[in-house]
Amino acid sequence: MDLDELVFHPWVAQGPRRVPTIVAGEGSHVVAADGRRYLDFSSQLVFTNLGHRHPRVVAAIKAQADRLCTLAPAHANDVRNEAARLIVEVAPEGLGHVLFTTGGTEGIEHAVRMARLVTGRPKVLAAYRSYHGSTTTSIHLTGDPRRWASDTGAAGVVHFFGPFPYRSVFGATTPEEEGERALAHLEQVILQEGPTTIAALVLESVTGSSGVVVPPAGYLRGVRELCARHGIVHIADEVLTGFGRTGAWFACDHEDVAPDLLVFAKGVNSGYVPLGGVLVGERVYRAFTERPYPAGLTYSGHPLACAAAVGAIEAMHEEDTVAAAARLGTDVLGPGLKRLAEKHPCVGDLRGIGALWTLELVADRDAGEPLPTGGPQMTAFTKACLDRDLLTLVLANRVHVAPPLNTTDADVTTGLTALDEALTAVDAELRAG
Amino acid sequence: MDLDELVFHPWVAQGPRRVPTIVAGEGSHVVAADGRRYLDFSSQLVFTNLGHRHPRVVAAIKAQADRLCTLAPAHANDVRNEAARLIVEVAPEGLGHVLFTTGGTEGIEHAVRMARLVTGRPKVLAAYRSYHGSTTTSIHLTGDPRRWASDTGAAGVVHFFGPFPYRSVFGATTPEEEGERALAHLEQVILQEGPTTIAALVLESVTGSSGVVVPPAGYLRGVRELCARHGIVHIADEVLTGFGRTGAWFACDHEDVAPDLLVFAKGVNSGYVPLGGVLVGERVYRAFTERPYPAGLTYSGHPLACAAAVGAIEAMHEEDTVAAAARLGTDVLGPGLKRLAEKHPCVGDLRGIGALWTLELVADRDAGEPLPTGGPQMTAFTKACLDRDLLTLVLANRVHVAPPLNTTDADVTTGLTALDEALTAVDAELRAG
Repeated sequence: MDLDELVFHPWVAQGPRRVPTIVAGEGSHVVAADGRRYLDFSSQLVFTNLGHRHPRVVAAIKAQADRLCTLAPAHANDVRNEAARLIVEVAPEGLGHVLFTTGGTEGIEHAVRMARLVTGRPKVLAAYRSYHGSTTTSIHLTGDPRRWASDTGAAGVVHFFGPFPYRSVFGATTPEEEGERALAHLEQVILQEGPTTIAALVLESVTGSSGVVVPPAGYLRGVRELCARHGIVHIADEVLTGFGRTGAWFACDHEDVAPDLLVFAKGVNSGYVPLGGVLVGERVYRAFTERPYPAGLTYSGHPLACAAAVGAIEAMHEEDTVAAAARLGTDVLGPGLKRLAEKHPCVGDLRGIGALWTLELVADRDAGEPLPTGGPQMTAFTKACLDRDLLTLVLANRVHVAPPLNTTDADVTTGLTALDEALTAVDAELRAG
Repeated sequence: MDLDELVFHPWVAQGPRRVPTIVAGEGSHVVAADGRRYLDFSSQLVFTNLGHRHPRVVAAIKAQADRLCTLAPAHANDVRNEAARLIVEVAPEGLGHVLFTTGGTEGIEHAVRMARLVTGRPKVLAAYRSYHGSTTTSIHLTGDPRRWASDTGAAGVVHFFGPFPYRSVFGATTPEEEGERALAHLEQVILQEGPTTIAALVLESVTGSSGVVVPPAGYLRGVRELCARHGIVHIADEVLTGFGRTGAWFACDHEDVAPDLLVFAKGVNSGYVPLGGVLVGERVYRAFTERPYPAGLTYSGHPLACAAAVGAIEAMHEEDTVAAAARLGTDVLGPGLKRLAEKHPCVGDLRGIGALWTLELVADRDAGEPLPTGGPQMTAFTKACLDRDLLTLVLANRVHVAPPLNTTDADVTTGLTALDEALTAVDAELRAG
């Protein structure tokens, strides 16, 4: 038996699988056991913002491993403190404290717990077309079909529609109109549910794995104002978008919005050591100076994970990684994808910002009919990419394109060429079908 | 401001705190910023089973960091496979696959999800006096007061009483009687709830942070048989007890019990990199060869965490760490604690096995009245230990004693002497009060 069969794999049926065995990484590439090199246009699951084997982060991990890998949260620790300082320094205004977790889903769980304890209210609002994690509260807040199998009907979860100009449920014909109508809809949901029953609103500042939807100008700011007006704790889910992915430290920075709580993970240390957390603003912090915060976790503020964060954030400052991500979006990756979208009939919509993009593939551009999930065309696409040594992230009928933020222009060009050929294969499949 | 104040701390009120800043570790000791060395009699939160800076684990981490820190679960990976092989090799019979998570609470979440999906049943049984983690399902299954603040009344959670001879709720006068009555009680709970409504029973094989209760002989085996008879998925929570802590690889090994699912974390790699998981038996595995397992997490099978596990398990084989833990219990730590329990009137009960013990402190030995949580005597105890450079884990009226499994006899003697003096301080407080 292949040893890979001993591993129980998420999201798939168990049994033998045909996937490359990756044994090493280098920048925007990974290397398989047979020596083949793949260009990673997905940053794995959109988290290796600095690519693989970044020397600064590796050195930070190795130095910390020689000193102290791990420590219980109850003791104080120098590197944990330094990670908190660096994170707070780049955070939206007013987010002055950090509860560390091991990843995004635990961050969401703790943020929601804080909001419920501070407000004494039961309900939490979240958007359809969203992903917030796989533990019980996070998966119930999730607004896409990945929730269904785990949905046991959690009390207090209410879903609303966010703006999505490409497939408007509001009958809007422009992004501006979509943003305005989505805000009016949200206000109605709040008023009908009862503002005094709503503890929190959880929202990805840019929708991530459910479809890369950048909100129309003004929407996030409008959400922030609605929350403030009704005493609702605004929880920004920046697990996927944080730490430069959208060409700003956090996606809410694009609208100068500071939420009450901000959940991060992934990019904080490019996933080199599992780490996430909640940035905590004054309102919530103050409530827990009077009483204990009644929860925790063994690896909160894990020194090795925090050392990787210190190394990663210092590298991002030194190398101006956030500006590099913005430039990828405006000057290199964005324009390149736009050319592909115009060229290939199978591309129904292109959306994105910075180093976070998606191509939505359709059977018919006018009708916008999505290509079937796992159907022959999407399978042909994935195979064509792999044949060209390109790793992409395919979800439903979407091709998510999210390379490491420091990917070179030459590598972007190589990846775009492979994408171009793979989309040509889809066009051919469609004509044949 | 002290940088420690930027960190939002679990389980306590926020604000300035007086705790040592730990900057390094070495075996069973940690070192503070001021150079002071502390003997760690708690293995932090009972997870540094190999102590700090174990050369074999540090070397494994550094070598992996030079190659590939992180990888998405969808790709295969050599070190992830090797970790799975080593874990399955020491696991109870029939547990042939591993879903990796970042810690124990995610392991419980996924195990419960698997059980519900496989059985199609809604309810989960768990014991009072238990701790299973801090995410929504795990905290609701938790059967001690740490649940209360987060308890929103999850549907389908049912608590039962496990055996606890020291404070029997069954009126038992011997451990044997307690075990038998606890089993009869559990059978009644199952019959009254309706066996066909119960997906899973979650049980710590030895109760951990809620009081270190070793079940009477025959109890675990009886639980296993009840689960098998009624088609209930038996989930063993071995997050704290696994990987040698009780003097066996897993605590259920003491009774040759193999559960359907086994959740581990902590000791798997001594917490050097956050890692946990679910060992999956045939019944559950087979169900997910026919359909996808509909959940996952970004850092499942994280290469750096798995490399630490490979290093740790190899070290445990080479150094016979499990036998060392058993010997600590029977020859060194166990007898030493027994002498303290007999000597000090404030010790109401001593319980434990291997390298996992607790002293329950009481105001009156005959009445068994617990010393108040956070009261003057427990505070005096903690201070007396710290003054003697000893770290212990104090929870409510209990002193948990759980040093690294490879702690030397000399260090155990040093720690016992400090404990002796700290207990003398409690005795004095009690006489004064």
